Amino acid sequence: MTDTVIINGSFITMDPAQPYVEGVMVIKGDRIDYVGPEKQDSISKDARIINGRHKLYMPGLVNTHGHAAMTLLRGVGDDLALQVWLEEKMWPNEAKFTSEDVKWGTLLAILEMMKGGTTCFVDMYDHMNEVALAVEQSGMRGCLTRGVIGLCPPDVQDAKLAEAKQFARDWHGKADGRITTMMAPHAAYTCPPDYIERIVEAAHELNLPLHTHMSETAAEVEQNVKQYGSRPPEHLAKLGVFSRPCLVAHGVHLTDEEIALLQKHDVRISHNPGSNLKLASGIARVPDLLKAGIKVSLGTDGAASNNNLDMFEEMRLAALIHKGVSGDPVSIPAEQALRMGTLEGAQSIWLEDVGSLKQGMKADFIALDADQPHLLPKSNYLSHVVYSASANDVTDVYVNGKQIVRDRQCLTLDEEKIKAEFRQRFSALLG
Amino acid sequence: MTDTVIINGSFITMDPAQPYVEGVMVIKGDRIDYVGPEKQDSISKDARIINGRHKLYMPGLVNTHGHAAMTLLRGVGDDLALQVWLEEKMWPNEAKFTSEDVKWGTLLAILEMMKGGTTCFVDMYDHMNEVALAVEQSGMRGCLTRGVIGLCPPDVQDAKLAEAKQFARDWHGKADGRITTMMAPHAAYTCPPDYIERIVEAAHELNLPLHTHMSETAAEVEQNVKQYGSRPPEHLAKLGVFSRPCLVAHGVHLTDEEIALLQKHDVRISHNPGSNLKLASGIARVPDLLKAGIKVSLGTDGAASNNNLDMFEEMRLAALIHKGVSGDPVSIPAEQALRMGTLEGAQSIWLEDVGSLKQGMKADFIALDADQPHLLPKSNYLSHVVYSASANDVTDVYVNGKQIVRDRQCLTLDEEKIKAEFRQRFSALLG
Repeated sequence: MTDTVIINGSFITMDPAQPYVEGVMVIKGDRIDYVGPEKQDSISKDARIINGRHKLYMPGLVNTHGHAAMTLLRGVGDDLALQVWLEEKMWPNEAKFTSEDVKWGTLLAILEMMKGGTTCFVDMYDHMNEVALAVEQSGMRGCLTRGVIGLCPPDVQDAKLAEAKQFARDWHGKADGRITTMMAPHAAYTCPPDYIERIVEAAHELNLPLHTHMSETAAEVEQNVKQYGSRPPEHLAKLGVFSRPCLVAHGVHLTDEEIALLQKHDVRISHNPGSNLKLASGIARVPDLLKAGIKVSLGTDGAASNNNLDMFEEMRLAALIHKGVSGDPVSIPAEQALRMGTLEGAQSIWLEDVGSLKQGMKADFIALDADQPHLLPKSNYLSHVVYSASANDVTDVYVNGKQIVRDRQCLTLDEEKIKAEFRQRFSALLG
Repeated sequence: MTDTVIINGSFITMDPAQPYVEGVMVIKGDRIDYVGPEKQDSISKDARIINGRHKLYMPGLVNTHGHAAMTLLRGVGDDLALQVWLEEKMWPNEAKFTSEDVKWGTLLAILEMMKGGTTCFVDMYDHMNEVALAVEQSGMRGCLTRGVIGLCPPDVQDAKLAEAKQFARDWHGKADGRITTMMAPHAAYTCPPDYIERIVEAAHELNLPLHTHMSETAAEVEQNVKQYGSRPPEHLAKLGVFSRPCLVAHGVHLTDEEIALLQKHDVRISHNPGSNLKLASGIARVPDLLKAGIKVSLGTDGAASNNNLDMFEEMRLAALIHKGVSGDPVSIPAEQALRMGTLEGAQSIWLEDVGSLKQGMKADFIALDADQPHLLPKSNYLSHVVYSASANDVTDVYVNGKQIVRDRQCLTLDEEKIKAEFRQRFSALLG
């Protein structure tokens, strides 16, 4: 594979040693070989040269919580009370989803994410083989898990767990290592304690991390206390969930003691500000989580509760709402939000060589068109990316050193076909 | 002027009688003549026909508070305490602005706004002749005012007031009626009481509305009490500010009594959620303001405190943050946020024939490319516009029936020249 060299580029690296550099980046195979000022010997004779003038390069965004196929329910039931939304709009429609629906719903989500600069995403859903096939084909990176709800008879519980284990075994490390897997009890309120224990056991057996929803709403916390005598973090700790590497989604309603407990077990939190605001779940204590040393990343959640999959918006929301709510204008500065959306996102799903532009890291990166009014002047690109940019500014996307989006066109998937099939699935389901 | 007819279109009208229609829209001269299902006689023989397939049409967005030329300070000093930001980053740099700086800073802001679907904006700044000339040339609509700060010797106060009056007289009703003007004491904390009274008197004399910043931060409210013995709304009421039609920016820190006072005087409030969050000013009581019957619109504020001029984002923030903070998922539904960004924005600056797609209204409207993953499925376009769209989705913009943006290209301004001149001004000021 010929080297790729980007010249005349502006690079947000997320490398603490040099957070922003102008110069060149050299990609050898699937990794970054050099980022820095142009050097005499940095360009090999047969390298593919890309002129990066007026482009801004940065690590690809990592979306650490979502349900991709829910694009099919985007705009179906907004501005509703949570229970009405779930019980009348989401669950009855999701129950009708076939594997074909999940396939096309996920492919549309992947199109939206990759064209918008997301290079890696976490997905927790059903019919996960379709999701894995879509990730494989797209060229993206995915951390995938069959989310299991245990409110069902024992034989159905058994079948779901077996399916989740099989999926994890089949796909972990596949697609040139772009796919990793986890085990996922959907939530404490949707899985009986003994079922959660069995899922934890399976995670030990397969040597995989766990992913679950936790403490998303005040009502959920209350119900947990009523039903099990403890709040979700203590409850899950007792069931052994934190004996495995663990990523929890939301973590909105947490006490100081719970924050200390999560920190002790190195539990990672996927903060989903857009979804938490839209569903009126509340505002997570992100500044306190960070102060405690917890790794916090960002997720969009499904498109029915966001309603887009734009990670720039999640970075912006994270940087904005905690300032507004705390009254502290230095809370969650732009660089912190950017770390949450990139490097700490990758680390949250145990990818230690993804998320920054630095020698030896995987070449997962994106380019933005910086020659647009809203990204001028060239004062502070870190600030612009967080406070002014959006998914539509992304022009080029690379994962594992391979280009998957060029000049806003997807190179690996047939966008027109996906949109047409998606429209058809939506009509059949809800038209 | 030939009629323009859009066929096969999807129209968000903001007309309560039919908020969403599919069919045709007919534009005659500067006004909308018909919106509705296609009829035999709705298309005249020599009309210019536009195929609106896969486009979503809606009224242009109205940005009711800002300082356009502050694009020159975008990214200059973020994540700082408010006083540091103002005293070390904004004021010293703004003091250096010449009329040429304001000209190019404003033109860049206008480019960003018009390409992003804003058809009308309020601007409060200095060197306003340059702003008016830029609005005239751009084809946009503008409600412009020379913002005066009165912390200066009497002769300078006099000169500023005279200049503000002259500007208002020179430009009110100009550019085919696209420009209107107001009088604007910058704020109670930057203008002595007797100076505010003189500005109110001028507004009576010229028969113009007033615009001012009010109750943006808790510190400002406290200082007003310390200095004048009353909080800003009572103070301004005493000085006669509400004896004129009045638009206040921010209104973050208001008591129930103050909300009643503002309602009584039909004072309009420009809610600036992005700026209020970023500067940690607080979260305005928008659901309470609406309940009281106050007309609330949306503004971006200047690009140094936002940091973009994307009104879709302000609609989204308005719809999201009040849900999250109140815990009420039905607070500020999508349609309400859309009204604030369009029809109520226009009404807030006393434009009664702008802001909806309806027979007799001014033809100020925009088109979005709806054939993109994040705007699918076609479930609920009102929801998509608020929860999923962004400025970059806008493809076409019309004001007064005249097209000013086509296929994302500005037809009235030279974008490359503006960007080049803007870069030069920024380098000279801060490079």
